[in-house]
Amino acid sequence: MNYCSHCSRTVVLRIPPGDSIARYVCDACGQIHYQNPRIIVGSLPLWQDRILLCRRAIEPRIGKWTLPAGFLENGETLEQGAIRETMEEAGGRIAITELYSVYSIPHVAQVYMIFLARLLDLDYAPGLESLEVDLFLPEELPWEELAFTSIRFALERFTQGHRGLQLGHHRGSV
Amino acid sequence: MNYCSHCSRTVVLRIPPGDSIARYVCDACGQIHYQNPRIIVGSLPLWQDRILLCRRAIEPRIGKWTLPAGFLENGETLEQGAIRETMEEAGGRIAITELYSVYSIPHVAQVYMIFLARLLDLDYAPGLESLEVDLFLPEELPWEELAFTSIRFALERFTQGHRGLQLGHHRGSV
Repeated sequence: MNYCSHCSRTVVLRIPPGDSIARYVCDACGQIHYQNPRIIVGSLPLWQDRILLCRRAIEPRIGKWTLPAGFLENGETLEQGAIRETMEEAGGRIAITELYSVYSIPHVAQVYMIFLARLLDLDYAPGLESLEVDLFLPEELPWEELAFTSIRFALERFTQGHRGLQLGHHRGSV
Repeated sequence: MNYCSHCSRTVVLRIPPGDSIARYVCDACGQIHYQNPRIIVGSLPLWQDRILLCRRAIEPRIGKWTLPAGFLENGETLEQGAIRETMEEAGGRIAITELYSVYSIPHVAQVYMIFLARLLDLDYAPGLESLEVDLFLPEELPWEELAFTSIRFALERFTQGHRGLQLGHHRGSV
């Protein structure tokens, strides 16, 4: 950030009065530009014993497998975001079962929130950001070809005995 | 947002190619300025049967009671944010027990994440943003004087039979 998005003057990085963290501050109009972590919301969609994964068509980690997930948008709930991302990336219609994995990645200011979900039909198909979409039995999961540690975290917890039968969730961080 | 924070030229609100949502776009330098929901992280601190609340010294809802909570900062995990906010607002040292309440407020683009926690000592004291800090038995909670619906949601779930004995969490939204 170089300029104030409100008045276009140059911003400076400084700890505001009463604060303890440096922020981009505009001395011309007084605006403080806070920057905060973003939520990546998605689902772990199940069809009977199989898990739906997408192979990424975009960077980062193009060609690697992931759960359908993306940035939560203004104006939606977590559940709406998970449903939307699953439709956009995998053409998958889901019903949310439960919040399953909550995983902080502080060095990139992201929090992953993955919902366990039930795939409602088999009419899935890759969206613009996916090369292919497929269902995997737990023992078939492409562990060496997963895109992100946050996705590995969710899938490891799921395959290590939970299988969606036991509700609850798992928290973790890098 | 009026100006590009990268190059200071005027931004326009438009749906970028391949997107479905209007974003602030800079035609001079090409930057797309995404805006996403913020996480408010906090705790429901317990000392035996009592719940720690803070009375707000700042707007909004000055003078009303709340759980210690605030915006998650870049570079911290959810758990670190909850511990920091409890110290800043209430001088309270806590140990995290479990994620308890996950509450979306889409119209203001916020997600509340409240952790059940154990207060480690009675050395609490109001921080700069609190007028007072006190412990309440469930039957003494100031229901008519609570600051936010997200806090009411967490406290209602807690007092309606859970009492922290049963782990798990509750999801909701406005």
